[in-house]
Order: sequence, then C-alpha cells, then structure tokens
Amino acid sequence: MTSYSLRVGCSIRDILTPALVVDLQKLDYNLKRLPESLKGININIRPHAKAHKCPSLAHFQIKHGSVGMCCQKLCEAESMVTGGIKDILLSNELVGKSKLTRLALLARNAHITVCIDNEDVASQLSHIAKDLNVELDALVEIDVGQERCGVPPGEAAVNLARHLTSLPNLHYKGIQAYQGWNQHIRKYNDRKAAVDMVVTKVKVTLEALRKHNLPCEIVTGGGTGTYIFEANSGVYTEVQPGSYVFMDADYGRNFDQKDEYVSDFRQSLFVLSTVVSVTPGQRAVLDAGLKAISLDSGVPVLADYPELTFNNGGDEHGIITPAGNFKVGDTVWLVPGHCDPTVNMYDNLIGIRNGIVECVWPISGRGPGV
Amino acid sequence: MTSYSLRVGCSIRDILTPALVVDLQKLDYNLKRLPESLKGININIRPHAKAHKCPSLAHFQIKHGSVGMCCQKLCEAESMVTGGIKDILLSNELVGKSKLTRLALLARNAHITVCIDNEDVASQLSHIAKDLNVELDALVEIDVGQERCGVPPGEAAVNLARHLTSLPNLHYKGIQAYQGWNQHIRKYNDRKAAVDMVVTKVKVTLEALRKHNLPCEIVTGGGTGTYIFEANSGVYTEVQPGSYVFMDADYGRNFDQKDEYVSDFRQSLFVLSTVVSVTPGQRAVLDAGLKAISLDSGVPVLADYPELTFNNGGDEHGIITPAGNFKVGDTVWLVPGHCDPTVNMYDNLIGIRNGIVECVWPISGRGPGV
Repeated sequence: MTSYSLRVGCSIRDILTPALVVDLQKLDYNLKRLPESLKGININIRPHAKAHKCPSLAHFQIKHGSVGMCCQKLCEAESMVTGGIKDILLSNELVGKSKLTRLALLARNAHITVCIDNEDVASQLSHIAKDLNVELDALVEIDVGQERCGVPPGEAAVNLARHLTSLPNLHYKGIQAYQGWNQHIRKYNDRKAAVDMVVTKVKVTLEALRKHNLPCEIVTGGGTGTYIFEANSGVYTEVQPGSYVFMDADYGRNFDQKDEYVSDFRQSLFVLSTVVSVTPGQRAVLDAGLKAISLDSGVPVLADYPELTFNNGGDEHGIITPAGNFKVGDTVWLVPGHCDPTVNMYDNLIGIRNGIVECVWPISGRGPGV
Repeated sequence: MTSYSLRVGCSIRDILTPALVVDLQKLDYNLKRLPESLKGININIRPHAKAHKCPSLAHFQIKHGSVGMCCQKLCEAESMVTGGIKDILLSNELVGKSKLTRLALLARNAHITVCIDNEDVASQLSHIAKDLNVELDALVEIDVGQERCGVPPGEAAVNLARHLTSLPNLHYKGIQAYQGWNQHIRKYNDRKAAVDMVVTKVKVTLEALRKHNLPCEIVTGGGTGTYIFEANSGVYTEVQPGSYVFMDADYGRNFDQKDEYVSDFRQSLFVLSTVVSVTPGQRAVLDAGLKAISLDSGVPVLADYPELTFNNGGDEHGIITPAGNFKVGDTVWLVPGHCDPTVNMYDNLIGIRNGIVECVWPISGRGPGV
C-alpha cells in the first residue's frame, strides 16, 4: 500500500522509515540454532508461520530440516501453499462452509492437517472433502490450560477422536496440546513446571486414547519459550516454535542464566525509524507509533540505546525520553515488544546484510485472516 | 492480502470474518452531523484521513462541505491525491530528501500544506520545491501541551514563521495547534478546561506573530472530542476531527450528559467476528485477536451483548466470558476500542445497508506509513 519500491542492492541508508527489517546474519544463526538445540532428540520441527507470514522465509526453515509449517489462519495457509510449501498444519479451528471449502481445496496441492474441537465442524469438513475428492488429516485439539479452544483432556478427546475415525476423507492422526501463555513465563524453572503440568494432561489423554485403541501418531505443541521441554517430554512428536526466527523484547525478558535455549536466539527483527522532531533536553520524536509497532506486550527497546525509553506517542509517533543526542533525520533501530502483531502491520520484510538490502520478501499472509 | 473477494450486493451473512464493516446509515448520519453541529460558526472543516485512510470515504466528507483532508502520513496523502482529493494538509513533520521530494511532487496535482517545526527541514523542502517548480503552503506547528512535535508557543513560533517567509516556493500560512490527548478526557467540563489552556497558548502565539507583522491566515487543530471548543474559541479557522465518522469504544467512554457533540455521533464501525469454539458455561472464542482489532485503548465492546466481556485471547482469538448462549458459527459484532489502528490492519472497508453489502472500499492509505 505504498508507492515506494525498495531496490535490492541499495544501502540500508536508503530504506524509508518506518520499515520492518531483518538482519539476515542473525536470522541465519536462529535458523541453524533451532535444529542444533534439538540434536539427538527424536522430534519433528514444524515452525509457526504466524510469526512471519512469509513463504520466502518458510522455505529457509524447510531447508534447515523442518517437516512443514504451522499456520494459524486460512490466509496464512493459502499464502504458504501458493508460495510452494507442501505440508501445513492449520493449528487452529476453522468454521463455516466457505472457509472449510477453501481449506479442503488446499489439499489438492499440499498435505493439510487441521485442528478440530467440535464434532459438527468435523462432519462438515469431511463432507466437503469427500465432495471435492480430497483427503485431509485431523488432530483433536485439547485444552491444556490455555482456556481458549480445544476439548478437555481425557474422555472428551477420546469421544472426538472416535467421531473423527468414523468420517470419510478426514483422518484422525493425533492431538494438539499447545499452551501459549507458558511461553512468556519469565523464569526457566517456573516455565518448566508449567510445561510439566501440560505434559501430565497430555499423558492422561494418551492413556485414555490407548485404552480405546486410538493410537496417537502425532502430538504437537510448544513454542519458542518452551519447545525444549515439550521435545524432552517423551510424549510430543512435534514442536511449533515461531518467534525464534525474529525474537522480540518480550522474549528478551525471559532471560535467565539457565535459559540457554531461549536466550541463545539472536534478536534479528527491527523496526527502523527516523527522528522527525527534537525538543533539546526533553524528547526526540520518532515516526513509528501504534500503526508501525505493536505495544500489546510492552514498548519497544532502542537496540543501540537501551538506557533510553520509548513512550507511546499515539498512532504515528514514538517519543524517546530523555532526548539523548539525537538530531532530526537520525535513524533509530527498535526491537519490537511483540514480533507477530508488528510483522502483521507490514506488507514487506526487508532483509539486510553488511549494510546492504539483500532481499525484500512479501509478507503475503498478512492481514486479519479472512 | 487475501484470496477472498467480496461481491457487492451479497448478504451480510456472506461476509467472511474477521471483517471491518461500516454501517452506511450510521456513517451518513455522522457525515451530516458534523457540519450541522458547526452551523452558524465561521470555521472550516478539514477531517482527518488518518481515521479511515480511504479516498472513497474522503469524497463523501468533501461532499458534506469539508474544504479538504488532513493526512498524518505521506502514504495517506499519496493515496488521497491518487484518489482525487485536491486539498491536503500533511498535519505532521516529514523528514528526508526522498519523502520531501514525494510531498513536493504531490503539489503538481493538489494544493498541499505541510507542518514544520524545524528550520533546516523547511529550507530543504523549499529548495526541492523550487527545483521541481511547485508551490507548497506551510504551517508552523506549535506544541500546545501534547509534548510531541512542534515548537513552543510564542517567540519560537515567530522565529520559525519568519524563516519560512524568507524561503521561495514554500509559503507561510499560519499555525497548527493540536492536542491529541485532550480528545479522550472523560468529562465535558475537564475537556473544555483543557482546551481553554490550549487556546491561551494559541492567543499568546497569535499576539507575538501579529507584533512581528506575520499574519496568521490559518489556525488549525481540534479532534472529535474537542473540535466544538476550538471552533467556538474565536481563534481557530479550521478543525480536524477524524474519528467522528466511525467512533469507537474509547470515545464512547467520553459520554457525559452535557456532551451532546461527541455522544451524538453514532457507532458506525464494527469488526465482524465468528465464534470458532465454545466451552459451555465457560467461554466462547472468537476469530478476532490482536491482528484483527487493536487493544491499545482497551478491549472491544460486544455491540449486542454489552454485559459480556471480551478478553485478550492472543494474536488470533478473542475470548468472551461468560460464554453466553453462543454456538460455533455465530457472528459477533465488536465495537473496536480504538478505530484508527484497527482500520490500519485491514485492506478493505465493507459498507453495509439493510443487510446488504453496498460497497467494498480499498483502505489504500493503509500501512505503517513509508
């Protein structure tokens, strides 16, 4: 939605702001670090595309050993399949004939798995898939403490799994057990204890499914803050970290000396902004406000001046206090408080290396997610 | 960024969610109500396009007597001029040769005025405008309490105005005096008192300018929450309300029995969402989260169930408690907490009337604002 086109090969000094920028050296490090951190553990990696919504980046994750991608929204899944990704878990509930039909149509070009927590929706999707002559896989989502979607662990999951096995063209494969809030528990031990509670609920469910002769080929869950615990639990077959490619100020606050896996990822994502006004001794004003950086998980951090504070300056401005030595026209690199909703505001992700713009990737899954 | 195209003429039941929807009857009311509320007052209306970023809607504002549009970002101004709007105030500071050149180029097709708070930027813009053989108007922005951009009232404004009068192709026309935070002061009397303080600063500045023989043809400012006070102040020549076309839950909280002007605008903007999961007796989960509705000014309100609470369910979900009688597939009309950053997430605005989709307007100024 801008008339400005950025040329690959130009200097980072030519980037107009506010801009969403990824440091490709740090991104490369994160892409390699995830599989390294899971070496020796029998676990699949299926990174979450909700963090970047960007097929170009997904291909690098696949190249680094991921089995496919998670998507949270249909538009993300459509952008990934259109972009050439061949294996998608829609790790969320879809509702309505139109969306279920679009999901089923994706199965013509990719292996599609979807989460289910409702019998009627499952029946409708099966019916649509049968009509279209496509096959999809399905996971029962269980609520392991997120208190959002999913059926309770244990018997409710068995009942839904049994229903799934009765349906044509929709194949029961296992369960999803994801707890998003756990990702942001600050201390390593507290976070580990929270995942232990999740694992207990998963074990109860696996035992109940086993009793009813419903084998569980897939157990998926875990994000950037906790995946190492799920991977080591002995019950998960797949983890879903997303933010690890970029990181953000909120994940930065998870730091703890024992937290080698989370703290070891590098901050690769920045919002590049420009000082547009200075009141000497009082404040510097940036051109990045609520429409350029999400404040839902706290204000951004100034990458090169962590001692200065970013204050909410409304829709189009950020206010830096104290003013520092900034002058009008200076650029400021901001570490977003929360990467996902910040990325969601931009149409393109600008990749830089050694001061040069190396790529401009369309964020083709962007949007509220129709 | 979606593969889904909505057909004009279809039923609102066919709208896929989450969707940004405007009730055209309520919008029409608001469009008429603004000039009516200013009847008999000698004041220009220049609505702010930052609220909608949508040239189609701007044309209706012009039709209802507005003299032109305000824009806060260059991309908004470009989308308005491309969409046929002929008079733009860039009510913000722009920095850098590239952006100033683009602004100057807009002056080939529209009357462009820009806010200035820095001598060097003014000189650079004048130089560029001269090279391109275009003419622009300029306003000195004064800081009337927002503590963001702008020079202090009084002498500093005089010095900058005098500098402007020395420059070719950039014509000093007056001042901008806008205080955004005042819009959201809850009580009528408190808000009026806050604007009285702004008006005092404007008067001091006008007096200083007059002393130096710098006439002030334009004094612009005022938003949806305060414009009636600025309009009645006797010193403003122009007001800039933006949100009045849509309103939001935060403006809804400004209600006070004396507040006939703000409370009289109708809530026309909604995010239409769908229930995707229900845990009976506990919660209903919507498909609208942080990427579909901005929570910066508080959670949205359920238009038809104000007694129920929307809870932050993360990037893609909203959680309704108590669960109410919702079933999976039900639609829920949400009143956004803050209209501007919510609109900024969407590529299109869907206009409805009597249950029918009457228009789909591109939000062509959307984006962080390069």
